[in-house]
Amino acid sequence: MKLVDLILRKRAGQRHTRDELQELVRGAVDGSLPDYQLAAWLMAVCWRGMSDEETADLTLEMAASGATLDLSEIPGVVVDKHSTGGVGDKATIVVAPLVAACGVPVAKLTGRGLGHSGGTVDKLESIPGLRLALAGDEFTRLLRGHGLAIASQSAELAPADGVLYALRDATGTVESIPLIASSIMSKKLAGGASAILLDVKVGSGAFMKDRAPAEQLAQLMVAIGERAGRRVRAVLSNMEQPLGLAVGNALELAEAIATLRGAGPADLDELCRHEAAALLVLAGRCTDEHDALAEVGYAVRSGAALEKLVEVVAAQGGDAGYVREPERLPRAPVVRRLLSPGRGYLSRLDALAIGRAAVALGAGRAAKNGAIRHDVGIVLHRKVGDRVEAGEALLEVHAGSEADAERALGSIAAGFTVSDEPVAPPAVLLDA
Amino acid sequence: MKLVDLILRKRAGQRHTRDELQELVRGAVDGSLPDYQLAAWLMAVCWRGMSDEETADLTLEMAASGATLDLSEIPGVVVDKHSTGGVGDKATIVVAPLVAACGVPVAKLTGRGLGHSGGTVDKLESIPGLRLALAGDEFTRLLRGHGLAIASQSAELAPADGVLYALRDATGTVESIPLIASSIMSKKLAGGASAILLDVKVGSGAFMKDRAPAEQLAQLMVAIGERAGRRVRAVLSNMEQPLGLAVGNALELAEAIATLRGAGPADLDELCRHEAAALLVLAGRCTDEHDALAEVGYAVRSGAALEKLVEVVAAQGGDAGYVREPERLPRAPVVRRLLSPGRGYLSRLDALAIGRAAVALGAGRAAKNGAIRHDVGIVLHRKVGDRVEAGEALLEVHAGSEADAERALGSIAAGFTVSDEPVAPPAVLLDA
Repeated sequence: MKLVDLILRKRAGQRHTRDELQELVRGAVDGSLPDYQLAAWLMAVCWRGMSDEETADLTLEMAASGATLDLSEIPGVVVDKHSTGGVGDKATIVVAPLVAACGVPVAKLTGRGLGHSGGTVDKLESIPGLRLALAGDEFTRLLRGHGLAIASQSAELAPADGVLYALRDATGTVESIPLIASSIMSKKLAGGASAILLDVKVGSGAFMKDRAPAEQLAQLMVAIGERAGRRVRAVLSNMEQPLGLAVGNALELAEAIATLRGAGPADLDELCRHEAAALLVLAGRCTDEHDALAEVGYAVRSGAALEKLVEVVAAQGGDAGYVREPERLPRAPVVRRLLSPGRGYLSRLDALAIGRAAVALGAGRAAKNGAIRHDVGIVLHRKVGDRVEAGEALLEVHAGSEADAERALGSIAAGFTVSDEPVAPPAVLLDA
Repeated sequence: MKLVDLILRKRAGQRHTRDELQELVRGAVDGSLPDYQLAAWLMAVCWRGMSDEETADLTLEMAASGATLDLSEIPGVVVDKHSTGGVGDKATIVVAPLVAACGVPVAKLTGRGLGHSGGTVDKLESIPGLRLALAGDEFTRLLRGHGLAIASQSAELAPADGVLYALRDATGTVESIPLIASSIMSKKLAGGASAILLDVKVGSGAFMKDRAPAEQLAQLMVAIGERAGRRVRAVLSNMEQPLGLAVGNALELAEAIATLRGAGPADLDELCRHEAAALLVLAGRCTDEHDALAEVGYAVRSGAALEKLVEVVAAQGGDAGYVREPERLPRAPVVRRLLSPGRGYLSRLDALAIGRAAVALGAGRAAKNGAIRHDVGIVLHRKVGDRVEAGEALLEVHAGSEADAERALGSIAAGFTVSDEPVAPPAVLLDA
């Protein structure tokens, strides 16, 4: 069958067979299918959608399109965690060592940030010397030795996703639930973990602005993973306001370290404990969430969770002194505060506005492969539901220059609303 | 504005501005817009459609994307005619000299056939020596001298259509009324004629299988042409069965010549006189169709119409002896007849089946730039509504070999139905 016939089938709203999707994925990877045909097919998929079965078939073919990590010799149920991304989302840096400290091996493959959505790789690279580009056998060796390895996503895993994602980005076909689900899950499946926790963010700072499509995406990804024989669970979490208080690479890393010590902000702490517990249950380490939360609590209190991060940072070439003394992490030269214009209750704190301001400060990249700064960012002093007094600091901007700080304060101002009426603090966990 | 934003706008069902379409057309022609982005945009257009205004804007930009013929110095209202293509459609070879013989200049730009839809260029090239690849000034010189010039469509006119059409063909985006309309009309507008008659074919052998989209296409093309300041009329005509009796290049040319003598099959004769009369009215040569039909009838009876073809063929380097004695045109070595299996009335004669059989015989090309034969084809002896007796010939196959003839007869058989009940012969002209 020619690709133009596959395009015509999808254009007419018909379903693809597994064989058709295999042909398509192969052709995308070996370059035998021209970009323009793939682009037309992608738009036809945005138009007509794909059934859950088609999406699962596509994902399995994408996962098998390149190298796959074989973690079968690692003892225990190896877990991984994925977040669809948001502002201030440093949960992976907390959850991965927390779970590993509880005896469940964590094979964490992670990415760099793009746009207002930060990347775990960028945050961790605030630690001098830390290497995250690990080759396949180094990754499994570290995983076996320490129960945790953290690596930047390799282009060798699910290369079909690399091809299709670059095309989607250039052709206005990113927004499609089947295409998003297959992109995320193909990489997770190729990464070899047996149990996967998915954190689907919902709100202004997330890719998914609304609850209904986020739920649809979550259910679809779980179904795909289960079809591939993995244990998968999805959590929906709030991204209307940033997660935690810190936004920016070193600032977020310091907050993650504080959370591993049990001294993190309430929403981040709650989300991380919930996700860690869910992974312990998923891996069969605990029988229920109550037991799992107790085990997680002990790992924090005992210092085992923080020690696991220290151990893994050192094993991957990083200076672990920065984990023990996060105040040594890079600090921006200019810190300016935004003061509350009146008294009342903080009723809105727009994650997207904060995320964009952080990118403008240099914490994130506007274009792929752009340079970033580790020191800059934003630290919130108040979150939605908090009482504020006139003249009190709402947040701090950490900037490279006075001019940058000024610009950031100006752009952030519209992202806040202070109301007279009390506002309930929003839940971080949304019931899925 | 970046093209990805244009794609996203169209994906979201928004309308493009004239400036946006200009940017798109320029980028397509100068190669600055990648094929894959154009392909995604084309599929988004198939999905969301375009308003009549957008389609007209796109068409005007495409028409202006390369050379345009300036026919302003030709005296009178210069006309052109376009058919959306069908099986046995040799009307242009009749209508163009007929109108020119009535004193209205005809600037005929025409194409080669692809698939089951034959091309006027291929038919005319049955005449040895005839040159249809005319440069701009040769075309206008011949037009001035003879009131008629026939040239194969130049790639220099509306080059944006060349780029977009090739992409549409490869990406399953051919079927889109706005894209079809802009493709046809951009070439006609660049061709410089002031008055244009469009013959939109409807039925199994046509691109448009159904009446409603054909009417929509016709109305849209008329609106585009009028927006560009041209006089435009569209005719809808029947393509359920082939037009006339002959299908195949030299066979069709001979039938066109017979029609110019007043000895053509009834449906072809009716369609050609109607179209010629419509052009005379459109050009202001006649005030109404009644007068125009009288003038057309006189041009046929007097021999002026045939003499105009003789004159133009000679002027374009062809051996006009073939027009006077069409029996000298190439003849296939093998002629085989298909006999009626029973008595009754011919109730179905599938144009697509006949057209495909003619391509298989070598009369048309399955792929672009493929070679064709001028001698082969099919000659119908009966058309829908005709009474047939058992054992009577329904048609003749003109083939290059016995094996080809055998294969054609086998494939054609399913295209016929003979019924017991009388069937009314279908009208060739459909009221628009």
